[in-house]
Amino acid sequence: MESVSSTIHHHIATALRPATNPFPKIRARQQLPVDPHPNPDPQKMNRATRLAESLSNLLHLHTETHAQKIVRQSNWNFHFDDEDGHNTPAMSPKENISDKWREIHGCCDWHSLLDPLHPWLRKEIVKYGEFAQATYDAFDFDSFSEFCGSCRYSPNRLFDKLGLTKHGYTVSNYIYAMSHVDVPQWLERSRLGETWSKDSNWMGFVAVSDEEESRRIGRRDIVVAWRGTVAPSEWYEDMQRKLEPIGHGEAKVEHGFLSLYTTKSDATRYNKSSASEQVMEEVKKLVEMYKGRGEEVSLTITGHSLGGALALLNAYEAAASIPGLPISVVSFGAPRVGNIAFRDEIYQMGVKTLRVVLKQDVVPRMPGIVFNESLQMFDDFTGTLEWVYTHVGAELKLDAQSSPYLKRKNIDLLGFHMLETYLHLVDGFLSSTSTFRSNPRRDFALVNKSCDMLVDELRIPHCWYQIENKGLVRNAHGRWVKPKRDPEDIPSPTTMEEAHTLICKGGEGKS
Amino acid sequence: MESVSSTIHHHIATALRPATNPFPKIRARQQLPVDPHPNPDPQKMNRATRLAESLSNLLHLHTETHAQKIVRQSNWNFHFDDEDGHNTPAMSPKENISDKWREIHGCCDWHSLLDPLHPWLRKEIVKYGEFAQATYDAFDFDSFSEFCGSCRYSPNRLFDKLGLTKHGYTVSNYIYAMSHVDVPQWLERSRLGETWSKDSNWMGFVAVSDEEESRRIGRRDIVVAWRGTVAPSEWYEDMQRKLEPIGHGEAKVEHGFLSLYTTKSDATRYNKSSASEQVMEEVKKLVEMYKGRGEEVSLTITGHSLGGALALLNAYEAAASIPGLPISVVSFGAPRVGNIAFRDEIYQMGVKTLRVVLKQDVVPRMPGIVFNESLQMFDDFTGTLEWVYTHVGAELKLDAQSSPYLKRKNIDLLGFHMLETYLHLVDGFLSSTSTFRSNPRRDFALVNKSCDMLVDELRIPHCWYQIENKGLVRNAHGRWVKPKRDPEDIPSPTTMEEAHTLICKGGEGKS
Repeated sequence: MESVSSTIHHHIATALRPATNPFPKIRARQQLPVDPHPNPDPQKMNRATRLAESLSNLLHLHTETHAQKIVRQSNWNFHFDDEDGHNTPAMSPKENISDKWREIHGCCDWHSLLDPLHPWLRKEIVKYGEFAQATYDAFDFDSFSEFCGSCRYSPNRLFDKLGLTKHGYTVSNYIYAMSHVDVPQWLERSRLGETWSKDSNWMGFVAVSDEEESRRIGRRDIVVAWRGTVAPSEWYEDMQRKLEPIGHGEAKVEHGFLSLYTTKSDATRYNKSSASEQVMEEVKKLVEMYKGRGEEVSLTITGHSLGGALALLNAYEAAASIPGLPISVVSFGAPRVGNIAFRDEIYQMGVKTLRVVLKQDVVPRMPGIVFNESLQMFDDFTGTLEWVYTHVGAELKLDAQSSPYLKRKNIDLLGFHMLETYLHLVDGFLSSTSTFRSNPRRDFALVNKSCDMLVDELRIPHCWYQIENKGLVRNAHGRWVKPKRDPEDIPSPTTMEEAHTLICKGGEGKS
Repeated sequence: MESVSSTIHHHIATALRPATNPFPKIRARQQLPVDPHPNPDPQKMNRATRLAESLSNLLHLHTETHAQKIVRQSNWNFHFDDEDGHNTPAMSPKENISDKWREIHGCCDWHSLLDPLHPWLRKEIVKYGEFAQATYDAFDFDSFSEFCGSCRYSPNRLFDKLGLTKHGYTVSNYIYAMSHVDVPQWLERSRLGETWSKDSNWMGFVAVSDEEESRRIGRRDIVVAWRGTVAPSEWYEDMQRKLEPIGHGEAKVEHGFLSLYTTKSDATRYNKSSASEQVMEEVKKLVEMYKGRGEEVSLTITGHSLGGALALLNAYEAAASIPGLPISVVSFGAPRVGNIAFRDEIYQMGVKTLRVVLKQDVVPRMPGIVFNESLQMFDDFTGTLEWVYTHVGAELKLDAQSSPYLKRKNIDLLGFHMLETYLHLVDGFLSSTSTFRSNPRRDFALVNKSCDMLVDELRIPHCWYQIENKGLVRNAHGRWVKPKRDPEDIPSPTTMEEAHTLICKGGEGKS
């Protein structure tokens, strides 16, 4: 543990040290204690405390909780030493893996690559995970925006805006999905009357590796990243309802997932074709193009949570319609999707599935588990569903306890389900029997983007991923207004045919 | 009401219209309905709903509440017409009021200026209120910052950073206060070991009108703005405890307020002198300087909530020590401070006090009222205190019901106490018998900076005043870190003597 401890120490130093220490005289050296005074679980704080906090937030007049007082009274001092930060690159080395790409893509079910985790595979898993994370980071959740439910950026700016150009991929198209009427309310909708779409949500993208990355990884890699969309608490109601046939055999999958994947309507602007049709059209086009050039081509489908379920449906369909294409799925915290026959068909078609699962995350155990809102905990609600729905593929099992960056107790249950938590743990995973690796590459601060998982000593605020003034800006007259979206980032129909239809009809609002 | 309705309509149009309407075909004209579907009071949502919302926030996976669904299903369309916004200046005209300055400053107790409210006086009240608001807007609340409890900007940049240069004042010095040990935890403290100060908080500033503004208002105006500091829920415990003598007569004031105003300690860096001594030294210096130049000089002291209480103590002391100086207090939502003898002495010394009070705000009724955390409501806790503590001066009474911009029901109780709500209502106040004025000047969006008071149709997010990514920025190595504060904005001791002492002693940390 010594090396891990000093590594963290080192990272804290690099990340946090001010260039000039304003308090040179009172600087002290002290080793990093591991979470002696964690914050209380917000869900377990009593009502009065929570109320007091909300009051003080409202007033800009902050009170101090008991736990905060304990923290304050303890004497934490940090030693900040590494001024230039050369030892904490945010990127790991990019080895040429072209001669091993089939193994890393799962042709042998990742045999002997998972435990211990091969560093080349780790890097690939993180890459796909960051594509899945992009679908959250770029999504417009603002219900007062006329673009609520869309991607905030156009396809050609997405990776630029999110700092993901390092992976060497280019977005080729977006995928939209609509919710069928008999499915629970799974989509985001604007409160406004005039919106970019009343029915559809941005659900992900298709991207393709560029020349340089293709040389490094040994083939032209098409990636599909699917966005997750709803709180797990809403799923079970639908998931316990029904399995629905898929394909021509005994395979069945969960009705809600399939509905989201296949629903379309001529009355919409973005789902005249379904998510299924959109993604398959784009993938087929790319496969034909690059195969036509004589290139090796692979398809990798990724997603977190519900997005992982959609990834599996997408892989099933792609395998059925593009024989011979190497297809793998890398899913994070995904629930079960179908029955045993579905799993068997997936196997038989040669789809390779790597399921990254966190021991403390309950979602991969759904269906079969319910989030009990009134008790604020997860419960098994039936033992029988375990036998109906089944998981598919190889598993990389993570344990939150392995990371010394994460709080040891009183952690928000849902923090274990966050994709950034997964990516942090993949980054530090060496093997099921060893401790966190001593030279993790990803920025630990990312873990706290939308939760409160990091130990306080790291000084990273919880839920820090937020837009300045919730997007309001001062206009020329000194007033705070919602700025218009950059015209380039305004969603437009996916095909020229649709654009033409729209122009002729005068917009979806009339339909 | 027709004119008010069309005015709001007009303002919405100006503030919100995108320069190019992306949906020209589906634009519709519709009058603004007045809040037909308000959001539910967050405090009244049932537990399951609140939990679901917190879950979905955590997951970036948003669910929809019942009320949101109703809002969405109703067909709100806005007509955005005024493209240039020339009709919605954020600033009102600046009349020359030099020949009326004594009346506006309260020499005749604002007789015949309050109801109806004289427009010149309205503008002056808003000006002082914006100075008080600046003490909140610039305060560092971040408990992971080593500068927690300080002002985020140096005195010479404060107004620039907050967009307050329009008032024509210059900050001359900052005021710091420390909390006495037997007073409840009223101050913000950093969780870190190395901090700018372990004992003190920034409590406000002294500023002075520049040449141009002095000509307009007929005298050199020294303003002191005091910051409020704690949630009202914490006050009563202290406030019911004891009154303490002030001055040489029968006058008594609340112990906690007086303690905050007068406490000092040699062991601190910023409170070797008390807030009282700091402010009086600065004010005396300025009065002497400008009187020495033969100028007319006035002192105006302002503050909101607890800051209003400190303003009154400050006025009492200033009147006692600088005879003949015209002194007035403009307070917003301030609690009672002292007994009847205190009020009488204030009168006799010629201090003029204008108390701006919102009918729905309970804080001005404190002491005598308690915030009951377990019941989430305010209660009278004793009738007797009404007779012990008493208010001082003239009153401008506002009514939240007067503003068509504010929600009619289900409003957060504490939203009524926010200073921005006060300033909005002053801006629209004509008289106690007339409706909201049809040409209000202040930006209504400001109301929602830290609460949820505006009707949904205005499309202003609630609690929108927030820093991008909670202050984290990506460093050159791609890591998210707390940036160092600009050296110019790092707090430094208030006098050269103190700076010298600090250098000789090696910092307060040793004491």
